Amino acid sequence: MISTTNINNKCSIGIDIGGTNMRAILFKDNKILFDYNLATPQNDKESFLIMFKALIEPLLEKANQERLEVKGIGVGIAGIYNFNQDKIIFSPNIKIIEGLSLKEEIKKLFNLNKIILDNDTNCFLLAESKLGAVRDYNNVLGITIGTGIGGSWLLNKKIYQGIHGTAMELGHIIADSNDLITLEQSFQKLTKNNPKLLSEKAKYGDKLAESLFKELGKILGIALANIINLIDPQIIVIGGGVIESSNLFMSEVEKYKTQFTISPLAKKTKIIKAKLKNSGAIGAALLVD
Amino acid sequence: MISTTNINNKCSIGIDIGGTNMRAILFKDNKILFDYNLATPQNDKESFLIMFKALIEPLLEKANQERLEVKGIGVGIAGIYNFNQDKIIFSPNIKIIEGLSLKEEIKKLFNLNKIILDNDTNCFLLAESKLGAVRDYNNVLGITIGTGIGGSWLLNKKIYQGIHGTAMELGHIIADSNDLITLEQSFQKLTKNNPKLLSEKAKYGDKLAESLFKELGKILGIALANIINLIDPQIIVIGGGVIESSNLFMSEVEKYKTQFTISPLAKKTKIIKAKLKNSGAIGAALLVD
Repeated sequence: MISTTNINNKCSIGIDIGGTNMRAILFKDNKILFDYNLATPQNDKESFLIMFKALIEPLLEKANQERLEVKGIGVGIAGIYNFNQDKIIFSPNIKIIEGLSLKEEIKKLFNLNKIILDNDTNCFLLAESKLGAVRDYNNVLGITIGTGIGGSWLLNKKIYQGIHGTAMELGHIIADSNDLITLEQSFQKLTKNNPKLLSEKAKYGDKLAESLFKELGKILGIALANIINLIDPQIIVIGGGVIESSNLFMSEVEKYKTQFTISPLAKKTKIIKAKLKNSGAIGAALLVD
Repeated sequence: MISTTNINNKCSIGIDIGGTNMRAILFKDNKILFDYNLATPQNDKESFLIMFKALIEPLLEKANQERLEVKGIGVGIAGIYNFNQDKIIFSPNIKIIEGLSLKEEIKKLFNLNKIILDNDTNCFLLAESKLGAVRDYNNVLGITIGTGIGGSWLLNKKIYQGIHGTAMELGHIIADSNDLITLEQSFQKLTKNNPKLLSEKAKYGDKLAESLFKELGKILGIALANIINLIDPQIIVIGGGVIESSNLFMSEVEKYKTQFTISPLAKKTKIIKAKLKNSGAIGAALLVD
């Protein structure tokens, strides 16, 4: 007798909505079958939803071609999502999606029941913990540095969400007590919202650019020490676009992290780089798995 | 038939070792039967252990008189205790106990098997969550402000210890990014290590003292916003000696906590005052319950 239950024709769609790009993947058996990217619209909600539809349609077509059933869509958002009210309540780098009931909107667009939204850094950490750099750990602090700075915490192998679903908003902690600006604001001020350009300058020996990256490393190192002093994790994993330039600031991060972590035991907490490409989208796909 | 198992003649000893005083209680059925206090020695380990013995002996005598069996001794320490190595590894306000294997020392002094040590703020929060102000909550941030500033976090009704047992060292997070000094150092600098004197001055209308308390409220409020942005708790409970002067700084704490908490949902996180007297010693006694 041949069992039909082993024939798996199910796949998921994972979407990562970042401040600059939106990325969509068709995901099956822990592998990306197909991916598609579009720039994140910046003008209004309506054009955002049109582009969002345009992002997903090629994946649904592909699934159809391959005779795969789409189980659902997982979406990672650079912002704070209110799970209870289905509302994006804060997204400093994609202002137009604030107030959007994205789950409801996706239901209107596509005939799919399983739609799960989460913070993009939560998706990143979920992917890295299941398939990437921190598979063997169960208490992991995750950080993404891209357009903004995001945080997530894996505790007992699950993402810790907090009481209001707004835990580990580490880009928004006050990093400069003088100007009262956040870690993310400090980062955006130092890099003039263009970390890529700054890193190119630094790589070609621009002294100012180099010193700005060192300053960034100091701010980030102190922030990490503060977070270690609070949650005392096993390991820290860093991802996001800026991680490609991490050699410009990681030694400063290490120095200040070690100096300002108070516990001699926790001073040695390792910081490692993320392994996966597309971890945000992969983690989003894993949400519906 | 009379069941003898209901005759409970067991009690516990709870000790709270603070930067200024050591407090010991004999604890039975959630009530303090007897208590005894001594000043915390500041000269050396030997005199600390002599005084520690002198602190406990009257309680053992009392238990003997009352024909009670002492189950064990719980000790709360203002500092970082390494559970695995039985060593106090950091105690900025009681320097002489650093390096002490206190569990081993207590075993040498008294013929008792159950000896449990923990951080004093963990004991404070344990007591407040079992018998005090936060009985109905399971995700609570606890803060004590006395000689130093301590933190603790109750998560799923248990104290969250972190991977190295050094979580929620919130007095030691960097609060001033200019001077790179910690929350506790800022507090001790503002109050010149004498918060009691400063609060008396403020109560008699000393403008400088009043403004220093407002500054303290601002620093504490920003620190709380940062911690809410990270762990997103249900409620915050504040205790410790300085809480008697809380009307001098709580409105500032509220103001800055609300301003710098990023999530609109978490902005409303309540801060309440502790209820119990002797919560540190009660929590220490509860450790052996």
